Amino acid sequence: MLRNRIPDVVIHRLIGYLRVLQEMQAEPDDFISSAELGEKSLVNSAQVRKDLALFGEFGKQGVGYPVRSLLDELTKILRADRDMAVSLFGVGELGTALVRYLSVRKRYDPSYRFTIRALFDEDKRKIGTKLEGLVINPLSELPRLTQSGDIKLSIITVPASAAQEVVNFAVACGIRGFLNFAPVKLKVPPDARVQNVDVTFLLQELAFYL
Amino acid sequence: MLRNRIPDVVIHRLIGYLRVLQEMQAEPDDFISSAELGEKSLVNSAQVRKDLALFGEFGKQGVGYPVRSLLDELTKILRADRDMAVSLFGVGELGTALVRYLSVRKRYDPSYRFTIRALFDEDKRKIGTKLEGLVINPLSELPRLTQSGDIKLSIITVPASAAQEVVNFAVACGIRGFLNFAPVKLKVPPDARVQNVDVTFLLQELAFYL
Repeated sequence: MLRNRIPDVVIHRLIGYLRVLQEMQAEPDDFISSAELGEKSLVNSAQVRKDLALFGEFGKQGVGYPVRSLLDELTKILRADRDMAVSLFGVGELGTALVRYLSVRKRYDPSYRFTIRALFDEDKRKIGTKLEGLVINPLSELPRLTQSGDIKLSIITVPASAAQEVVNFAVACGIRGFLNFAPVKLKVPPDARVQNVDVTFLLQELAFYL
Repeated sequence: MLRNRIPDVVIHRLIGYLRVLQEMQAEPDDFISSAELGEKSLVNSAQVRKDLALFGEFGKQGVGYPVRSLLDELTKILRADRDMAVSLFGVGELGTALVRYLSVRKRYDPSYRFTIRALFDEDKRKIGTKLEGLVINPLSELPRLTQSGDIKLSIITVPASAAQEVVNFAVACGIRGFLNFAPVKLKVPPDARVQNVDVTFLLQELAFYL
């Protein structure tokens, strides 16, 4: 099955399985059943078996899947072994919290693949200061800092009113994946993607069921 | 159609429409077409018409939907006019950023329905201090502060290792909706719900497509 033909919802579940397996720190001979993998990733076991069969992975009856080889296979399918450079726009409290979170993850786990590489803010009092060893830059530095083409991911923590403009500029500089915390729907060209984290929206969805 | 029989995915889209309509600040005679509503909420217009027809809302050919009455109807269906008290567990940098975000939203828009009501942290240096006018409490205060039954929502920004234990205690105290920022899958009973915001997971999903 070609990578770009796997439905998004399957990718979503595969990443869930990958995270469960990564966190197991398995020994070479460890196995995991579809029931256990399903329980830990909140997917039913029949769906787990169906998803993994798509890639020719078949668990053994009564034993399950060999953890290390399943982990290797999922890592390959999901291309989860590449280091990814991340930029962050808007170094306010939320932006600062996220930079620290990612820096700490990387410090404690050198195999953690996301590395904050460039920070941007338009506040003159912040420009030139450092956070977690990285200088905070004005947006005007974006073309220079993305020239190498390494930075394809970014986190958007600017105010809602500035977000679309920042994203347009970032797209023009080659950034293609946006994790958006600004409470606004962003438009990007078809070859770019946005994941929205809208706290109000998420609370509204939870509140509906209460 | 009964509220609890609307599929989650439809609820998700309806909340998107509601947010678009709320942000329009429409005049009494304003109309919106399914195309415009679809474009602003990133849903195709046929889906918009189908979703709204479920509730007996039919746009007029060439004119669309009356914004204010559609807004009222969606607010009623989604019960989006209730004030909701929110608790937050873990007043670190991320927790602080979220408390400030919600407090600022409420200050500038008194109709904003989510109000931070109680903060919890186990760090002795934080307990007793204030953030946005609210005292930071130890977890032992949770039963007392939830006694009235008002607080049904919570935001989880504690470390991953503490999250499940905190959530178990919160469930026992009547909290039913969890917005979880800890990078761990939480288990809750069937009458409670969790929305996960896992930054690493979201970045992995974006990275797959790059």
